Amino acid sequence: MNEIPPKPAFRYVGTRPVRPDGLAKVTGAARYGSDYHPTGVAWGKVLRSPHAHARIRSIDTSKAEAHPGVFAVVTGADFPEQPFRFDGPERLERNPYYDLRNVMAREKVYYHGHALAAVAARDEATAKEALALIAVDYEVLPHVTGLDEAMAEDAPLVHEDMVTRNVTPKPARPSNIARRWESTVGDVEKGFAEADVIVEETFRNDAVHQGYIEPHACVAEYAQDGTSHLWVSSQGHFQMRDLTALFTGMRPGDIRATPAEIGGGFGGKTKVYLEPVAMLLSKKAGRPVRMVMTREEVFRATGPGSDTRIRVKIGAKKDGTVVAAEAELAYNSGAFPGSPFINGCLCVFAQYRFPNQRTVAFDVVSNRAMTAAYRAPGAPQSNFAAEGVLDILAKRLEIDPFELRIRNAIRAGDAQVGDRKMTHDGFGAMLERMKAHPAYARPLGLNQGRGVSCGYWHNAGGDSSATIFVNTDGTISVATGSPDIGGSRASMALMAAETFGIPYERVHSEIHDTASVGYTFVTGGSRVTFATGKAVVTACQAVIGQLKARAAKIWGVEVEAVDWADGAARPSSTNVGRFEALTLEDLANKASATGGHFGASHSENMTGHAPGVSAMFCDVEVDPETGAVKVLNVVAAQDAGQAIHPSYVEGQIQGAVAQGVGWALNEGYVYGADGVLQNAGWLDYRMPVASDLPMIEPVVVEQPNPGHPYGVKGVAEAGMVAALACVANAVADAAGRRMTHLPINPPRLLKALEDREAEL
Amino acid sequence: MNEIPPKPAFRYVGTRPVRPDGLAKVTGAARYGSDYHPTGVAWGKVLRSPHAHARIRSIDTSKAEAHPGVFAVVTGADFPEQPFRFDGPERLERNPYYDLRNVMAREKVYYHGHALAAVAARDEATAKEALALIAVDYEVLPHVTGLDEAMAEDAPLVHEDMVTRNVTPKPARPSNIARRWESTVGDVEKGFAEADVIVEETFRNDAVHQGYIEPHACVAEYAQDGTSHLWVSSQGHFQMRDLTALFTGMRPGDIRATPAEIGGGFGGKTKVYLEPVAMLLSKKAGRPVRMVMTREEVFRATGPGSDTRIRVKIGAKKDGTVVAAEAELAYNSGAFPGSPFINGCLCVFAQYRFPNQRTVAFDVVSNRAMTAAYRAPGAPQSNFAAEGVLDILAKRLEIDPFELRIRNAIRAGDAQVGDRKMTHDGFGAMLERMKAHPAYARPLGLNQGRGVSCGYWHNAGGDSSATIFVNTDGTISVATGSPDIGGSRASMALMAAETFGIPYERVHSEIHDTASVGYTFVTGGSRVTFATGKAVVTACQAVIGQLKARAAKIWGVEVEAVDWADGAARPSSTNVGRFEALTLEDLANKASATGGHFGASHSENMTGHAPGVSAMFCDVEVDPETGAVKVLNVVAAQDAGQAIHPSYVEGQIQGAVAQGVGWALNEGYVYGADGVLQNAGWLDYRMPVASDLPMIEPVVVEQPNPGHPYGVKGVAEAGMVAALACVANAVADAAGRRMTHLPINPPRLLKALEDREAEL
Repeated sequence: MNEIPPKPAFRYVGTRPVRPDGLAKVTGAARYGSDYHPTGVAWGKVLRSPHAHARIRSIDTSKAEAHPGVFAVVTGADFPEQPFRFDGPERLERNPYYDLRNVMAREKVYYHGHALAAVAARDEATAKEALALIAVDYEVLPHVTGLDEAMAEDAPLVHEDMVTRNVTPKPARPSNIARRWESTVGDVEKGFAEADVIVEETFRNDAVHQGYIEPHACVAEYAQDGTSHLWVSSQGHFQMRDLTALFTGMRPGDIRATPAEIGGGFGGKTKVYLEPVAMLLSKKAGRPVRMVMTREEVFRATGPGSDTRIRVKIGAKKDGTVVAAEAELAYNSGAFPGSPFINGCLCVFAQYRFPNQRTVAFDVVSNRAMTAAYRAPGAPQSNFAAEGVLDILAKRLEIDPFELRIRNAIRAGDAQVGDRKMTHDGFGAMLERMKAHPAYARPLGLNQGRGVSCGYWHNAGGDSSATIFVNTDGTISVATGSPDIGGSRASMALMAAETFGIPYERVHSEIHDTASVGYTFVTGGSRVTFATGKAVVTACQAVIGQLKARAAKIWGVEVEAVDWADGAARPSSTNVGRFEALTLEDLANKASATGGHFGASHSENMTGHAPGVSAMFCDVEVDPETGAVKVLNVVAAQDAGQAIHPSYVEGQIQGAVAQGVGWALNEGYVYGADGVLQNAGWLDYRMPVASDLPMIEPVVVEQPNPGHPYGVKGVAEAGMVAALACVANAVADAAGRRMTHLPINPPRLLKALEDREAEL
Repeated sequence: MNEIPPKPAFRYVGTRPVRPDGLAKVTGAARYGSDYHPTGVAWGKVLRSPHAHARIRSIDTSKAEAHPGVFAVVTGADFPEQPFRFDGPERLERNPYYDLRNVMAREKVYYHGHALAAVAARDEATAKEALALIAVDYEVLPHVTGLDEAMAEDAPLVHEDMVTRNVTPKPARPSNIARRWESTVGDVEKGFAEADVIVEETFRNDAVHQGYIEPHACVAEYAQDGTSHLWVSSQGHFQMRDLTALFTGMRPGDIRATPAEIGGGFGGKTKVYLEPVAMLLSKKAGRPVRMVMTREEVFRATGPGSDTRIRVKIGAKKDGTVVAAEAELAYNSGAFPGSPFINGCLCVFAQYRFPNQRTVAFDVVSNRAMTAAYRAPGAPQSNFAAEGVLDILAKRLEIDPFELRIRNAIRAGDAQVGDRKMTHDGFGAMLERMKAHPAYARPLGLNQGRGVSCGYWHNAGGDSSATIFVNTDGTISVATGSPDIGGSRASMALMAAETFGIPYERVHSEIHDTASVGYTFVTGGSRVTFATGKAVVTACQAVIGQLKARAAKIWGVEVEAVDWADGAARPSSTNVGRFEALTLEDLANKASATGGHFGASHSENMTGHAPGVSAMFCDVEVDPETGAVKVLNVVAAQDAGQAIHPSYVEGQIQGAVAQGVGWALNEGYVYGADGVLQNAGWLDYRMPVASDLPMIEPVVVEQPNPGHPYGVKGVAEAGMVAALACVANAVADAAGRRMTHLPINPPRLLKALEDREAEL
């Protein structure tokens, strides 16, 4: 603690100022999804299926429509049909035919809680009354919710005509396996043949919800003249706008979507549920419509992370060098195909230089709410399996688990599945640093264990935009289209401050609506600080170009004779002393008189992002009486490239670990035989609270990404990936028993401990 | 009517589509100044002076503050003092010391209705209660409201220490004459010596209010973290932001000002009244504050157009060639200096090539509400005088009044006062066209008369910005910072449609807040279609550059090999047939996959604007029994340069004439001896209504301005300038009696007719 920290290379980047949105959020002034109150707004409510699987014979809405307090009723028939077509890159592909049906059922309801009609009424109570007046004639069908059951030969078919895609020849009969994906590096059979030791194990996890604090909420206001408005709490208001337009038959440009604050998303707020419904209700009602889900609706009808079954087999030499690895992954996608099963493949071994790898994965449908992205979607599950097998391997070979991983750490240029090559170095160095961490040498007590794991997330670039204006007082307005979940307003302001060379306090950083800033993809994939940050810096540089040109005009010199440094235009070396520097404030003051004000917009599909790697260890203590696990200590490292605002990088690491502990120890969907989720509320679905967690020590590693002006890599997800396995490996160490099914909740662990006793 | 109109040179410019804001305004969905309802908003109300002039000995707000429903009370002491300093160009200069005092009195109240304290309370009734609890100790001072009285040697001094500026040597004693301005062209004495006939007359007009439908209204929400918000109905939310920041001691960049719709402004909504008060109340109250003026407050405390006294002397040869002209102008500015008296000089003779001219003008203070801009501020008054003298001259010389004006019509290069030169030709041609108008030859009946007049307004350029985005569906979003008063959303959309070559329906045109678009000066000076339009076109061209570059990238050719026409990138001549055209929609669809989305911002202090000239004639009938004047017919021509949306150009001409009829015949402030405005409401202040007016025939003359990409000149004001004189000259023709004091209301005219009878 007495060491003097090295002087940062940057003046503002890397500092820890107060976030721009902090005060409003702390004082309650910030406006979230349900905080917009246009005059005449109606309440919208959704009618949801009481069955896990049923054909809709008919819906009679006439009584609801006749209710005097009801303004509008919509059913699936009000939404224009969508083509059956898979759009987008393979990993992110969507089928609008399915996605529409997830928003509003048509022929069938596919899960308990599936939306099949909605009303807009004068108030919430009236809306509920009206829902009760809608008569639906169902033909109940057999259902299936479990992954193994859904994959069984004789399983009830969720979609009667679905045959597995990407299988040659095309399967003769339908199944619940929607898609297959396979990728190989090297020669796996040859690899296993060379192995001294082979470990194989199958792992499972229950579905888990993102657990954001704020339920889905929106206000839609239809206008027939092309100025409709959507007020929406989401991870991407451009995406919400585009999907709302798609499912309502509107043009995206006819909707102006304003971002509310967002009370957590973690991937779950990249999908539309209410927005197209609210828009069509508003169109029918002729007034704005607000919709807010209850917590129960969030659990029953929005996407959790997939429950999975993943078999991993790894073969190694005695010295720990892995020679072959294989994974077979099955992801439960819920009612419609779209689980992140390919991500599972792409991340399962990605932080290691395994010369021979094969991954085969399946996207499986069932009668559950359709899954959504959840923080490094698909990766924590497969990582749990792979890092569990490595843990067994390390124990078997009696090699320190970090050491085992150091020997196999990936380097730039190494092959990864999916025809990829690792682009950046530094993972091994991070592992060496973790292995040397003082806490890693601390002795463990009775019933205590230590786990190690590493994670990988490819991170993302993509479409981002920024608009920069110089205000009349010389302050800077930074407008982006990236909803701020993890403090990105502060990061954008810091990068703008650094680029201009002006104090952070002179930068205003705000999130703008779809008409006020260029197209920007969702806040997700750990892409915002990288991609939107890059757009901000590029736009700032364009403005600096304008400022230099103006100074040149004022001084009567060529623009090449002007430098920009420390917030001012300065005469370059040949002119030093000839002119007084013109600060941003000076130039802003003179703007009008010298030709006009300053501003620039930049939009780009950003490339050059770097993958994120993480490494962590934790200590746990198992209570043999109850099966409860207490996490005692976590040290989690992650390569941020460059931490723009270190507190928020640390917060991302800590938050990811906290969520990972939830997956590992407590969270999980419990379905009854009736296909009904039995724990659709905070009391029965247990998320970790502050008292469940120790102080999580973040270790921010900074190996700059040359593809970003300030070296950013992206930090929100890689930490999450490793956390499940880390806890599970520590439990295995403490309990002497490997738990292969998450969550390792007290009943399960107690049962395992009892089994161990019985075996002894 | 059977003529085939000539094919317009443009495809979209010059057409008459439905305005984007039309439906919302017609259906009542549009949101005006009082239509914003943030949670917890408080009502703000202003305490106003019951005296026309008084020293404030003390203000005791303790009882109001103790009221349980009161959140905050402010007085002048809460506002930071401003320097005594004249800012800005001479014609538009402001003194923040005075302007602050107009917002909130400090040492003295200067007029009946002057704001001196304000409260924020839970509702309007409570706010009124609280105002009654504020105890003010006044020392009543002698007051002066009339212009002649204020200029008298022994007048009570409004500002005890004010000496006339721009007079050498500096006057020894203070007076109510705040400023003097003089400008000369040629040798006036020599000119008058050469004249065959000289006419001299003095004219007066009463103060008139702009009469906008919507009273001043705003919501302010202070936030200590630099994200304060102002919702404001004004002619320029950037200006409202900057002035609110100035008078509250904030930084402009700390306030995000969102433009509400504006229910009329006509110049009167370029000043701040409530906004800084609401912001300080919000700061004290810790909650948003809404303030809305009553109509009575609007009349008593917001700026009307000046009452003036203007003497004009013109000398001409027998053939009507004017050889010399002189004007002495006095403008009543109300409590603080700032009347548009210099505009009076600049416009009084500006449409004529008078070789020798002198104008001397005075800005006079009095105990009235401070004047504000009103449609061609200052010009209608001086035009009334000059065109009245020309009318007398034409009668005296027995020359047709249009012919007289044709002989003296200004041409490009002619000198004007204020060291200016006329920049554009075409005025004479417009006059010839009017002289040949069939209605000009219609015979007049008993008690009927015809008047002719011409007007001039310099129009304006100035700071404007635009941001253009291509939406994912290939529609265009046009963002500007110019509040839309006269249909400018439609004009911007038309210019964007023309530039891109896409249908108007594919352009979304909106007005954005101060953080979402570059700095933009007020909607005023007839500048928006010119200056903001120019910014829109420039930004569109930048986007077209991006689109062409993208097409070149897709085709693998140099950007020079790509043309843009009719909404698509097309291979240029050397490549015709090699590639399929890529439409805006195609490129929008491919945007992300080919590098990113499209958008550009442009800010500039626009130059190249052209003056506007108008010419009109009207027929009136005088009722000798009542003194009432009925306007029978008006034909009003104006040079629009190019009419972007002809309906709105016609609307501007018609609206200007309607307001001019009000000035001429009915409107006027009536003060009692107690210094209290006696007609502070619609019942007693009579504005023309539809039944007072004939169909006004607009003649849109189009002589394009080469300084604008589509030839725009600006159309909102030049028509207004000529209208007062036109009506007054017609009345003189009908009544055989020249009325030199506006309004020519029935009592005044009846008196004049009786005097005529007496003379006969």
